[in-house]
Amino acid sequence: MARLVMKFGGTSVANIERIRNVARHVEREVKAGHEVAVVVSAMSGKTNELVAWVREAANLYDPVEYDAVVASGEQVTSGLLAIVLQSMGLPARSWQGWQIPLLTNDAHGSARITGMRPEGVLAGFGRGEVAVIAGFQGIHEPSGRLTTLGRGGSDTSAVAIAAGLSADRCDIYTDVDGVYTTDPRIVTKARRLDRVAFEEMLEMASLGAKVLQVRSVELAMVHKVRTYVRSSFDDPANPQAGTLICDEEEIVEQQIVTGIAYSKDEAQITLRRVADKPGVAAAIFGPLADANINVDMIIQVVSDDTTTTDITFTVPTADFDRAKVLLESAHDMIGYQSLQGATDVVKVSAIGIGMRSHAGVAAKAFRALADKGINIRAITTSEIKFSVLIDAAYTELAVRTLHSLYGLDKA
Amino acid sequence: MARLVMKFGGTSVANIERIRNVARHVEREVKAGHEVAVVVSAMSGKTNELVAWVREAANLYDPVEYDAVVASGEQVTSGLLAIVLQSMGLPARSWQGWQIPLLTNDAHGSARITGMRPEGVLAGFGRGEVAVIAGFQGIHEPSGRLTTLGRGGSDTSAVAIAAGLSADRCDIYTDVDGVYTTDPRIVTKARRLDRVAFEEMLEMASLGAKVLQVRSVELAMVHKVRTYVRSSFDDPANPQAGTLICDEEEIVEQQIVTGIAYSKDEAQITLRRVADKPGVAAAIFGPLADANINVDMIIQVVSDDTTTTDITFTVPTADFDRAKVLLESAHDMIGYQSLQGATDVVKVSAIGIGMRSHAGVAAKAFRALADKGINIRAITTSEIKFSVLIDAAYTELAVRTLHSLYGLDKA
Repeated sequence: MARLVMKFGGTSVANIERIRNVARHVEREVKAGHEVAVVVSAMSGKTNELVAWVREAANLYDPVEYDAVVASGEQVTSGLLAIVLQSMGLPARSWQGWQIPLLTNDAHGSARITGMRPEGVLAGFGRGEVAVIAGFQGIHEPSGRLTTLGRGGSDTSAVAIAAGLSADRCDIYTDVDGVYTTDPRIVTKARRLDRVAFEEMLEMASLGAKVLQVRSVELAMVHKVRTYVRSSFDDPANPQAGTLICDEEEIVEQQIVTGIAYSKDEAQITLRRVADKPGVAAAIFGPLADANINVDMIIQVVSDDTTTTDITFTVPTADFDRAKVLLESAHDMIGYQSLQGATDVVKVSAIGIGMRSHAGVAAKAFRALADKGINIRAITTSEIKFSVLIDAAYTELAVRTLHSLYGLDKA
Repeated sequence: MARLVMKFGGTSVANIERIRNVARHVEREVKAGHEVAVVVSAMSGKTNELVAWVREAANLYDPVEYDAVVASGEQVTSGLLAIVLQSMGLPARSWQGWQIPLLTNDAHGSARITGMRPEGVLAGFGRGEVAVIAGFQGIHEPSGRLTTLGRGGSDTSAVAIAAGLSADRCDIYTDVDGVYTTDPRIVTKARRLDRVAFEEMLEMASLGAKVLQVRSVELAMVHKVRTYVRSSFDDPANPQAGTLICDEEEIVEQQIVTGIAYSKDEAQITLRRVADKPGVAAAIFGPLADANINVDMIIQVVSDDTTTTDITFTVPTADFDRAKVLLESAHDMIGYQSLQGATDVVKVSAIGIGMRSHAGVAAKAFRALADKGINIRAITTSEIKFSVLIDAAYTELAVRTLHSLYGLDKA
């Protein structure tokens, strides 16, 4: 007997028929003798409907009341799935975030989980009950107000609940059947991975792979929650295993590069002829940090004259305009000749724990991309990944080139 | 300064535009210096959508989970109204039933309110906050589960909350502008009443007037909550007063008859030639009571032969088939010759506290109805009302006849 958390997203619970399909997945695990907690999202479309009402109610709305409205979507699904499970003869009850309770801080709209008291859910397991838990929501106990974890927060709920319940594993059911070496829509030879290390998955999610929320992977890594990504559209009686995200020690045959990710959510800013003097980096990046703008890649190149330097860096596309305004207003303090920006860029990354013990992995890529005539605007590297910033027009070519280069193509 | 509860039903909060209109009613009362708690229903249509999903999920569903699903409708409206009020510069917060808490028993789907702890809402008043309360829902504290009060339960919530907050009055905003002497769709000369005594309103609601839920009137009477029925479609800047439901001592000029009600929710059953012996009434009405079927009017007439008797009574239309089956299976125990039933009947009632001190009020009606050729199938009377059961085809004629007879027609 094992203890499992199963998580189903909005498309998997879009209507009663699909909720019945979810219930058959749950039934399979219960009949196998497992203790099961199911974490559900709102029926697809419902969260958007609720958010649209909030926005129509006021442009600047209270995030506390936003949470009260939006948390209702998951409440509905949890009750409906409990009813369907009961109708199949499986004892079940719904749990709202505040009923468990799943505790969060008071960052309404994107609250962070601070803990949970699992006694009630565990007592239900003792009575043979399936716990059907409304994902995405919790409670800030000091104020007694509902909170939500932000978009995609149900993944995070599921992993946190798996940790809180000391579950043997957490199955994230999605509309894809696992984690791929890269986006199969771009590379038809992309392969589904059987296993990915937590660190690799964290980089892949951070660098553009959309299969899992970054925060949920962080949580899984910290609490060592063995997490499967698998498909809710598999035959419930005969499902595929999906991809296991686990400790690197569990991965026997480690590749040098595990996956290629890309992200269009990057914009490039270049400041030309910045005075090359102490304190200039602080003058540039201090105001951006104060405005909560994440700076990612940074490159500094000495200009033609040797008293100034060119500085290039990237920011999230959503913050591009704000960053430009900040830097323009700090022009005199920084002292630069011109500001250039580009949003038609993409960051392509290769991720793999094997890079730690292999030299020259990135260098090989730079050569291969140059051979295809792809100009590299910026580079960053870390222990287990490297990223290049290139013109967006070359996205597919670059991804395919790196995917072949590191032997990831399907046989 | 007064303390008010304002209640708005589903059609009054059907979309954001109407919620803004509700907010303007609230603004008027806040600007007049009052402490305000607003009780809201789900946006119209939402409860039906939720109930339909529950029914699609299972024919026989757990009422506990039904409540978890259906209570979400009021949660949404409470958050949206709080946001709109805030955007108008009025401090406001939403309160779910479990947050107040509003306590109920565990009769899920039609729970009864057992109390509330008003400290949190009162503290909000102290900070100048409008309390926006999700109607229809509460919590069964021992189990920690959400409960709902049954259809129309938001009226009951509002009155209970007014009692719990010791409010000076409770304003029930509806799609009509008050309580009328009878249904204006039948009698164009029906008048809006300025005041109605609790006891009269209770009879009118019980006997078919749909403007208020019976349970909410009971609560208002027990706790002496001065309750106004008024229109949410009035100009918020210049609203009408509506009808005050209050203690009879507050009503200066008491009419003998205050209103005429009718109900089509009655079915007649007649047992012919029942043995006229002790215990026969118990044999008939015991099984019906055991099956939770409410018997209303009962008439016993001696048959042609003097050893048997005919017994006529009414049951709710919804229970008619079930009652017949029960009585047929108890045929040998009761001992009757035949069972006759009719569903094309209507109960017409006249209600007025003045009847207490005036004799012959009902007799006058029997004569007037006979003059119009209306056959009376059964009669019941109490201290402040009498009802006649007649053929449904004569409904309008009978209502108009009594309305004129007791001087209720508009001048």
